[in-house]
Amino acid sequence: MDDNEARAVVLLSGGLDSTTVLAIAKAQGFSCFCLSFQYGQRQRVELERAQKIASHFQVKQHLILRVELDAIGGSALTAAVAVPKDRVPQEEEADIPVTYVPGRNIIFLAHALSWAEVLEANDIFLGINAVDYSGYPDCRPEFLDAFAHMARLGTKAGVSGKELHFHAPLQHLSKKEIILRGVELGVDYGMTHSCYDPVGELACGHCDACLLRLQGFRAAGLDDPAAYAR
Amino acid sequence: MDDNEARAVVLLSGGLDSTTVLAIAKAQGFSCFCLSFQYGQRQRVELERAQKIASHFQVKQHLILRVELDAIGGSALTAAVAVPKDRVPQEEEADIPVTYVPGRNIIFLAHALSWAEVLEANDIFLGINAVDYSGYPDCRPEFLDAFAHMARLGTKAGVSGKELHFHAPLQHLSKKEIILRGVELGVDYGMTHSCYDPVGELACGHCDACLLRLQGFRAAGLDDPAAYAR
Repeated sequence: MDDNEARAVVLLSGGLDSTTVLAIAKAQGFSCFCLSFQYGQRQRVELERAQKIASHFQVKQHLILRVELDAIGGSALTAAVAVPKDRVPQEEEADIPVTYVPGRNIIFLAHALSWAEVLEANDIFLGINAVDYSGYPDCRPEFLDAFAHMARLGTKAGVSGKELHFHAPLQHLSKKEIILRGVELGVDYGMTHSCYDPVGELACGHCDACLLRLQGFRAAGLDDPAAYAR
Repeated sequence: MDDNEARAVVLLSGGLDSTTVLAIAKAQGFSCFCLSFQYGQRQRVELERAQKIASHFQVKQHLILRVELDAIGGSALTAAVAVPKDRVPQEEEADIPVTYVPGRNIIFLAHALSWAEVLEANDIFLGINAVDYSGYPDCRPEFLDAFAHMARLGTKAGVSGKELHFHAPLQHLSKKEIILRGVELGVDYGMTHSCYDPVGELACGHCDACLLRLQGFRAAGLDDPAAYAR
């Protein structure tokens, strides 16, 4: 390694959660390597935001990888299935939403793990959250524990005795708590993008992601600096 | 589903092992969906063979996905590191070979899992092998068990109570036993490609993969029908 700081791979979508996680990893003193994915998502504006955010935080490297989830199909985020609008935002959701992408977080984490091994990084940060996204099986703490166990057995780094740490610092925070933590760290949420169905650069204000975000800012007593279509 | 047979996703590299696995899955009555990867490997001839093999076995679908392991780097198979030649072939290898690609099988299995979920397939077949490839952490039985556990917790299919089965029918077979099993099922090994460092369409005959393959055919008392450079 050419630097003294410990290296970390940070999964960065360009959204509110992952940007907060990047700020947390930086505040903990990690040398950050950000990883984003072009997976055929409708909201390509996410990746432009991710690039701006990575640049703003002066990360060591920002890698954007193509992952062909669109060829595999099966979700409202990549296929021609309608994104639900104006539903009552549900924390602690019981059903699995149509915006669930089969295997997405598993595929993303697998790439992060591969890159961490190449970088000799022992730490991987991600913005999964068990409160807002309890409907997604691949956001739950028991899933992440199982992934970490598998990673220790299935990598050279792991079997060589290196401790691989998967950090999900937002795991048990509400959207309000995430926003307050980010504001405390100086995050400019105007840079972030959360919408599942944006109108150009503007957030729709009606999909689940927008509704949860707006609800979070209201609960925090703050204005959301993001630009909305209406 | 539009057919009566149970569906299976089969990881197909175009090599000897995965082709044998495809023959086994077919023989077990599965409707096979084959998955291959273009991951920046030097041996692109593999993918042409995989296409011919998938066509020969009349599989339901053959999907070739781009995975950017070359952008991540870190292996003799994708980066500018020399492939070792004329080493003594080692079954039960203790060290991790330079041809180990960090996270490769984890990334491949993650894609297979995602596609299986979209296809409503409960079965995933792969040609990992604990005998020939004991040096690769991501080929060991305890790794695959941990992956299966993680998959049950991290997918909609898994948490909905569907039984996901990961089949590694070659797990405990020697190369000789794999070849004999394939020949019994009528596999034409002339179609398969194993070499890490081919000369055009021809296998080099000197890399670890070639040496293990040739040793396997000799042990089985058979001629290898593959074409070698010398």
